[in-house]
Amino acid sequence: MGIAVDRPQPGSGPYHVQLATSLRTRLERGELRSGDQLPTSRELAKELGVSRSTVVRAYEELERGGWVEGRVGRGTVVTARGAAEGRAGPDWDGLLTDRARPSSTEHGEVLRMLATPGLLSFAGGVPSPEFYPAEAFQQITSEVLRQQGPRILQSCPLDGYPPLRSWIAERAGCAAEEVIVLTGSTQGLHLLAQAFVRPGDAVIVEAPTYAGALRAFRAAGARIHGIPSGPLGLDLDALRALLRRVQPKLLYVIPTHHNPTGASLSIPRREALLDMAAEYGLPVVEDDAYATLRYDGPALPSLRSLDRGGHVIYLSTFSKALFPGLRVGWMMAPQPVVRRLSSLRNVIDLFTNSLTQATLYEFCKRGLLDAHLQQVRPIYAERRDSMASALRRYAPELSFDVPHGGLFLWVRLSEKVTGFRLLQASVQQGLGFLVGTLFHAGSGGENHIRLCFATHPQRAISDGARKLAVALRQVGEEDVVRREVDAEGFVV
Amino acid sequence: MGIAVDRPQPGSGPYHVQLATSLRTRLERGELRSGDQLPTSRELAKELGVSRSTVVRAYEELERGGWVEGRVGRGTVVTARGAAEGRAGPDWDGLLTDRARPSSTEHGEVLRMLATPGLLSFAGGVPSPEFYPAEAFQQITSEVLRQQGPRILQSCPLDGYPPLRSWIAERAGCAAEEVIVLTGSTQGLHLLAQAFVRPGDAVIVEAPTYAGALRAFRAAGARIHGIPSGPLGLDLDALRALLRRVQPKLLYVIPTHHNPTGASLSIPRREALLDMAAEYGLPVVEDDAYATLRYDGPALPSLRSLDRGGHVIYLSTFSKALFPGLRVGWMMAPQPVVRRLSSLRNVIDLFTNSLTQATLYEFCKRGLLDAHLQQVRPIYAERRDSMASALRRYAPELSFDVPHGGLFLWVRLSEKVTGFRLLQASVQQGLGFLVGTLFHAGSGGENHIRLCFATHPQRAISDGARKLAVALRQVGEEDVVRREVDAEGFVV
Repeated sequence: MGIAVDRPQPGSGPYHVQLATSLRTRLERGELRSGDQLPTSRELAKELGVSRSTVVRAYEELERGGWVEGRVGRGTVVTARGAAEGRAGPDWDGLLTDRARPSSTEHGEVLRMLATPGLLSFAGGVPSPEFYPAEAFQQITSEVLRQQGPRILQSCPLDGYPPLRSWIAERAGCAAEEVIVLTGSTQGLHLLAQAFVRPGDAVIVEAPTYAGALRAFRAAGARIHGIPSGPLGLDLDALRALLRRVQPKLLYVIPTHHNPTGASLSIPRREALLDMAAEYGLPVVEDDAYATLRYDGPALPSLRSLDRGGHVIYLSTFSKALFPGLRVGWMMAPQPVVRRLSSLRNVIDLFTNSLTQATLYEFCKRGLLDAHLQQVRPIYAERRDSMASALRRYAPELSFDVPHGGLFLWVRLSEKVTGFRLLQASVQQGLGFLVGTLFHAGSGGENHIRLCFATHPQRAISDGARKLAVALRQVGEEDVVRREVDAEGFVV
Repeated sequence: MGIAVDRPQPGSGPYHVQLATSLRTRLERGELRSGDQLPTSRELAKELGVSRSTVVRAYEELERGGWVEGRVGRGTVVTARGAAEGRAGPDWDGLLTDRARPSSTEHGEVLRMLATPGLLSFAGGVPSPEFYPAEAFQQITSEVLRQQGPRILQSCPLDGYPPLRSWIAERAGCAAEEVIVLTGSTQGLHLLAQAFVRPGDAVIVEAPTYAGALRAFRAAGARIHGIPSGPLGLDLDALRALLRRVQPKLLYVIPTHHNPTGASLSIPRREALLDMAAEYGLPVVEDDAYATLRYDGPALPSLRSLDRGGHVIYLSTFSKALFPGLRVGWMMAPQPVVRRLSSLRNVIDLFTNSLTQATLYEFCKRGLLDAHLQQVRPIYAERRDSMASALRRYAPELSFDVPHGGLFLWVRLSEKVTGFRLLQASVQQGLGFLVGTLFHAGSGGENHIRLCFATHPQRAISDGARKLAVALRQVGEEDVVRREVDAEGFVV
């Protein structure tokens, strides 16, 4: 074989060292493969015009470094290690399972747009940081560490720090054994998907629904069926029609202050849903993340509290009532389910940060959770109303229902405007939000956007509504131009 | 149909209420199914010797409660809800995926034994709580909350709190983009299993190896191949022989202060392993949980630091160097792998508790991690030596190597004694430890036990060794008796 190495130069050190370095550079660039034969010392010496012993000494140098080795009958060959240097290692992408492969959806493009610096963002799904009870948390964390010392930094039961678990159970009126504390409700969805969904299993969700739930069920390989969900909550007739032909593993539903629609299912509809669950033996996952953020009228009973048949797995989180950095949520389910999920959790993250759980327990026990909710509810209600008025004023062509709770307005655009196009135009105005398609498993949501009303004060809300109006006008004008162009038969 | 209801009794309230209650009790017991027909009011009135209007009013009562309904041509039938009351809901167990089903192994029995109250336990795999730097953590948590306020309670990037990520990268001499901060290294194993292992894929592990890794790969449906791992670390010849016939997704290895054996792979063997990885395109997961707990001689370079081919995914945790309640670990991998794992993590728990990450960063940055390690290393080394001497003194029939680091002695029993039987006898003496079979994917480890030497002070270690000696004697005597009984042909 010919190998292109530099001819040693006088004055640049010993010839054999120069030669070895030159050869190693070739190897480091991955130009040779394991088992490739190097020229014989005689051939290379002749080619480079150096003595044969120079080449032999260079080869010996490389051999000491593990780059090459002598093999009987084949001369000097490149070792596996020599060949691997400078390469990128295994074909990592080829080794990935489907669930870990990049999906090229609109989602990625939306996230890139929302990362634009300086954006006024209505995209978030979390409460407003200005009200986070950081000081109380600081004080209680210190107290817990002072009082409990190293013990609280030790391992913790898989199903949760016992006092927190009991507190949650008591508040919900169930047994502690029916509760499992989670590392956020995202973990709950993952755990449920791992426990119940095999590839190809059917899962029913609302359309639209929480994007994180879609991700969780998709990653487990579920066939996802969407049931329309509007101002009255999920469409029970459509659900019944689907249940007649599909036997799902789970129905995932957000009955109270729905994300993204804001709608709540009435009590009679909750009962009708439970009747259907009983009739079809249907396991229901109730995501109740937003229940405590209610601004008008009395609180709604959870599906779980109405269910006497043991069909409901209840999932909630402290991320919406308090703050997301906690990563603490919980699930309530029939005891056998809790036992199975706890033991599956052994594989997922063992247990939830024990100091955080202990601090949260003290915080709740002292009534600070309720006090915090009492503080933020009227503020968020006011912001909701501000956003509704600002939109009515600046963008009257938009339509939406004003929800009784939660964090979102789900806004319908005209048929001609897609949320994605409107987001593109809005980002140019310095405004961000989420587009409706993210909340659908299949098609749907093209003409909707989701605005979070809780994050910003009134002035920013008005400002955002004005930006949205400008973007709407731009998109509308483009549409007129496009239709005129189309009408005149121009090729665009 | 006949329905066994109690005949209303005078003096026990209105007849129709008594009758409705009696019927509801039947329904609550789940004795009737949805759609079952109740007797006509005429039939039931005749059967019970009451007036027909009593039965009609009882049925009306049940109808208001949603238990029954009138259907044209079928009279009074049980509703879905009526049928569901009192039932246990869906067949939850039948709905579970295989990974969530209970496995009835020796493991469960061992855990039950170890839960015996008052046990002196050498079973743990965590450092000693008496040295946890709880006070420093308390102070730094307060500082972080005071300085950063609500911001630190907000969401955090999926790949980690940026300063902590950078600190880890700098210490390891890699780019921050090659690091992902995890909710404990258990999450790392789960993430890797989710990302790389499809059911039926081959994964190679050491035999014995960390039980949590076995759980993670098993839950993903891996075919697990064990390679013997002894005092010199994993058997490279056996690995090569296996690689000739199996193409694994991953090799999982604990090269430094192995759990449970305590062994470390020498530098030449590390290089030989990397050569083999390069030759076979083998992805290697290096679990380095115990590296910082080294008591003799210079630290060993990690596989990752020796690997120039990009074959190694490195996994570690703060649980062993500090304390397990943190739930913070990290992974270092080629950038494309880190990107895929971060995005898969979106499905698993979003991100790791942000306040904990910030506190940990400050703790490390101030040199307190290194100071803590300097404090505990000599203490653990002393305890290791104490346990070795105590065992040699009280139970000279046991054999073990004294490891240069980590937390464990891996103790070989005589062929006649199983770890499981010895644990049963030891628990009666008030001593607990782990049995060797837990660390094997298939058979193996029957004659081994794992003792953690770091948890208890010298006096408790001696006490434990004496208890173990008593248990050994008991088991040995039983063995003699059993053999004598067998020899005499008695039926036991």
